[in-house]
Amino acid sequence: MGSSAGGSTDQTTGRSPMISPSVGAGATVDRAADFANYFCTYGFLYHQKEMLSDRVRMDAYYNSVFKNRHHFDGKTVLDVGTGSGILAIWCAKAGARRVYAVEATKMTEHARQLIKANRVENIVEVIEGSMEDVVLPEKVDVIISEWMGYFLLRESMFDSVICARDRWLKPDGVMYPSHARMWMAPIRTGLGEQKTSDFELSMGDWESFIDETEQQYGVDMSVLTKPFHEEHVRYYLKTSLWSNLNPHQIIGKPVIIKEIDCLTATVDDIKAFSVKVSSSITMEKTRLGGFAGWFDVHFRGNRNNPGHDIELTTAPSTNHSTHWGQQIFLVHPARCVDDGDNITVSFSMSRSRENHRLLDVELTWELTELSGKCSTPVASKYYIE
Amino acid sequence: MGSSAGGSTDQTTGRSPMISPSVGAGATVDRAADFANYFCTYGFLYHQKEMLSDRVRMDAYYNSVFKNRHHFDGKTVLDVGTGSGILAIWCAKAGARRVYAVEATKMTEHARQLIKANRVENIVEVIEGSMEDVVLPEKVDVIISEWMGYFLLRESMFDSVICARDRWLKPDGVMYPSHARMWMAPIRTGLGEQKTSDFELSMGDWESFIDETEQQYGVDMSVLTKPFHEEHVRYYLKTSLWSNLNPHQIIGKPVIIKEIDCLTATVDDIKAFSVKVSSSITMEKTRLGGFAGWFDVHFRGNRNNPGHDIELTTAPSTNHSTHWGQQIFLVHPARCVDDGDNITVSFSMSRSRENHRLLDVELTWELTELSGKCSTPVASKYYIE
Repeated sequence: MGSSAGGSTDQTTGRSPMISPSVGAGATVDRAADFANYFCTYGFLYHQKEMLSDRVRMDAYYNSVFKNRHHFDGKTVLDVGTGSGILAIWCAKAGARRVYAVEATKMTEHARQLIKANRVENIVEVIEGSMEDVVLPEKVDVIISEWMGYFLLRESMFDSVICARDRWLKPDGVMYPSHARMWMAPIRTGLGEQKTSDFELSMGDWESFIDETEQQYGVDMSVLTKPFHEEHVRYYLKTSLWSNLNPHQIIGKPVIIKEIDCLTATVDDIKAFSVKVSSSITMEKTRLGGFAGWFDVHFRGNRNNPGHDIELTTAPSTNHSTHWGQQIFLVHPARCVDDGDNITVSFSMSRSRENHRLLDVELTWELTELSGKCSTPVASKYYIE
Repeated sequence: MGSSAGGSTDQTTGRSPMISPSVGAGATVDRAADFANYFCTYGFLYHQKEMLSDRVRMDAYYNSVFKNRHHFDGKTVLDVGTGSGILAIWCAKAGARRVYAVEATKMTEHARQLIKANRVENIVEVIEGSMEDVVLPEKVDVIISEWMGYFLLRESMFDSVICARDRWLKPDGVMYPSHARMWMAPIRTGLGEQKTSDFELSMGDWESFIDETEQQYGVDMSVLTKPFHEEHVRYYLKTSLWSNLNPHQIIGKPVIIKEIDCLTATVDDIKAFSVKVSSSITMEKTRLGGFAGWFDVHFRGNRNNPGHDIELTTAPSTNHSTHWGQQIFLVHPARCVDDGDNITVSFSMSRSRENHRLLDVELTWELTELSGKCSTPVASKYYIE
């Protein structure tokens, strides 16, 4: 054998399992498998540091707390997924009376050290456990959490924030962030050609593998060509890609595909949704290489208790890129488009049956040229892994 | 957040969790977590192809079956972890009356296709499930399995072979492979210097991170320097490395540190062991950069039922390297050694508490120069992940 074990990258190929297996398919989730798959990453300081080094992320949360001290001063706060504890520490420094900092991983040990070293241990209480299980001694005025995954919803962590909100937020409580939006835009990129050639190389390699196995070992493997092809189409062409785009790669008007009010959203609102949007090409004679998805969140309190509006955006930027980057859904072959053309996109997102923290996307796009000429719709499935 | 989920590599860093979390620590193993961590990889054809493309591996098993037809002709065979089913197909082609091919992953679907396409579906029965749970209609004459992980024992898959043997092998039955050995040798390598500088870079980066976080966000992170240092010493310096060594990198006599008779070995024999060995340096004026570990297995039937001896070795080789490669345990700083010097190595291996398929190593080495001058022993812990 000789393969990856324990979630560590396959030492020989540097390649790790493309998706996790069918555990907790559908509604029921195996806790231990979920921990093995998901939470473990957050138990490492290298990963905490990565998030703590994201200046866009840090500035947004820092300003949202310290420019809205009136939301925190003398108040009780719940930090969902506190990690190293930084948000909890800021809330305490902003005057919170009590901060409950919940974290599922052993990072709690470091959080406690950090909270003590920053002399707020009398205000912040670190609680190790799943938000779903935790019992607090009181309801809170504010829930703060950095729950956003790639393209906002990957990781499905907002579920835990919703659970916390419904159980522990006072009726007039405030959510940090308070609002979230998912964006999509047509882009130009050479990634499609690259991935297509990688794919063709691996299929060519497979063909010679078939021949050798037949000649050397007398076994005909050709029956596996179709499933191998499917596996690799999925891996090279249908899996969305993390990217840090240059704004110049955006060739059309970005459109909002989902809006979330963190105070009222339910799990049903986010676990699956469909939307039809249209965007106009704003660049002359270029090629549509794919669609990019990103998100922003806002911190603006609520109607009865407004605050100074702070935005955290993961949109393509030359100077303010984030560790979230953007997710790219490739269009191959790339399609020639021109200024004024209109693209209609039908977008549906749902959770992966194999792993509720991963996402399946169905995207159908249709081009109407300025001349009025319509293209036939192009439909494709994508996997956010 | 924005992190790896579902075992897929962290999209931002390309780095995956260094180890899996504390599931099934000690004896009790959570099945779902174990599947998520371990078996999932084997559900992908890209990985099956990788193993099927290993000519050293394939030739050894192919020859062991077809040069020992008398062990298979008219016999019943159990293939533990059949994967794509290739070993089962060979056993059938070598004349087996019945072959039970057990596999825990969905790879069974492909195995069934392959077995049918190669017209042995009347002989080979594919059974999807854990070997520990499977019930066969009869005892078998032969158990064949490709169960070897990196440095032989990583993945702990031999446990399932032992379970299969104790429950389903006839008293005079044959094991394929029949014997296994673990080897170790002193080597020269520049990897230690490289990893040390990578480590120093990441610590320097941490220092500036501490300063920035204090200045920009008013939080003193220095209390986390020690645990961050420990996490990174482990990652950069104490985690064994996969390598495909050139035989010229071996600077001393390879020694056997463990021998396993597959017919009689127990789980206790392999789950933890200690050994003290000594090796002499065979190269003039060179530097000890670490120790390399590899394994070989033999196919030679048993005393009452011998066979043509076939060897599968993963020793460093210019023309016959394997996907297993060798595991390297770095010595840093490298130590000057000379022809005739003697190295004594105390080596203990046990299973990781966090994941029973990963291994912890304690290695203490001591140099006695030809002059008789002794060095002070150097002890280090290593992690095979």
